[in-house]
Amino acid sequence: MNGIALLLIGVVTLAGAVRFMAAASGQADEESAPIYGVKLPANYREWKLIGVNNLLVTGKIDQLRAQLGNDVAIKAFKEGKVPFPDGAMIAAIHWTRVRSEDNSNVLVGPFPGAQSYVVGYSVNVQFMVKDSKKYAATGGWGFADFKGGKPGDKALHETCFPCHAPAKDRDYVFTHYAP
Amino acid sequence: MNGIALLLIGVVTLAGAVRFMAAASGQADEESAPIYGVKLPANYREWKLIGVNNLLVTGKIDQLRAQLGNDVAIKAFKEGKVPFPDGAMIAAIHWTRVRSEDNSNVLVGPFPGAQSYVVGYSVNVQFMVKDSKKYAATGGWGFADFKGGKPGDKALHETCFPCHAPAKDRDYVFTHYAP
Repeated sequence: MNGIALLLIGVVTLAGAVRFMAAASGQADEESAPIYGVKLPANYREWKLIGVNNLLVTGKIDQLRAQLGNDVAIKAFKEGKVPFPDGAMIAAIHWTRVRSEDNSNVLVGPFPGAQSYVVGYSVNVQFMVKDSKKYAATGGWGFADFKGGKPGDKALHETCFPCHAPAKDRDYVFTHYAP
Repeated sequence: MNGIALLLIGVVTLAGAVRFMAAASGQADEESAPIYGVKLPANYREWKLIGVNNLLVTGKIDQLRAQLGNDVAIKAFKEGKVPFPDGAMIAAIHWTRVRSEDNSNVLVGPFPGAQSYVVGYSVNVQFMVKDSKKYAATGGWGFADFKGGKPGDKALHETCFPCHAPAKDRDYVFTHYAP
């Protein structure tokens, strides 16, 4: 083989190695979540509100939760149509639910016996990302779970799609748009 | 008085009458709330999320609540500074909290005993609008309460500022920015 061919092989190999490393590790200091390869969207906290909810598991979980959507997702929610278009992204933020003494003390004036609860700390943030080609095997959705900015492990991410499967009629999305 | 003077007086009087009627009634089919004269902001539902909370008054109130802020308000929350600048607007949306059978049935899989609650209907929406000149008598804030798009009565609006007075150190704002 001549020198040019060897050079080309060398370049292609090197480029392939770099791409592999980039794909496996994400961008510098940005780790992709397992299986679906979703990176933490930089501005998810600024997305618009879809809905609010509360999850209780006695003795284990007491959370206030909000779902936020990027503009593609919000538009789809407001149109009330499924399936969601490619590019739709939904964030589900989970906080601890804690009693607010200050609020409760104020509210017992007009509302005797009032108990006010607010958010404590952020437990985890979950994402659904629509890409009907890339994620064809899982209804077009990629899933991710982050704690403190770090993605959860592979075993955790194996549970996402089976859990969402019962919502197939709503394009696998549980949350409704709050009025 | 000559004819021109009479004409001018007539025009000024008519213009004044029209302005008075406009100010008293708000724009066509947009009613201002009493005392502070706040109109329902058209796009408040699209403002960004400040925080989420839950109010319980046994037997009376069981609500999930979200506070949303316009860009001026959000910027101030993120900077963590008080007082809020003029133009800041905060919406507090109050929904009923209702049990979701669908969600609960799904979540009892991974979380035995799970109880999931979502929002029902919108009970009312309250606003705080910062204008330190116009609302100098009430800490720079105008207040408003709307049910089904209609403002509440004067008696209700007389309760807003006294209730918020205990939060004077935080520029009369109870809600905190959720992480």
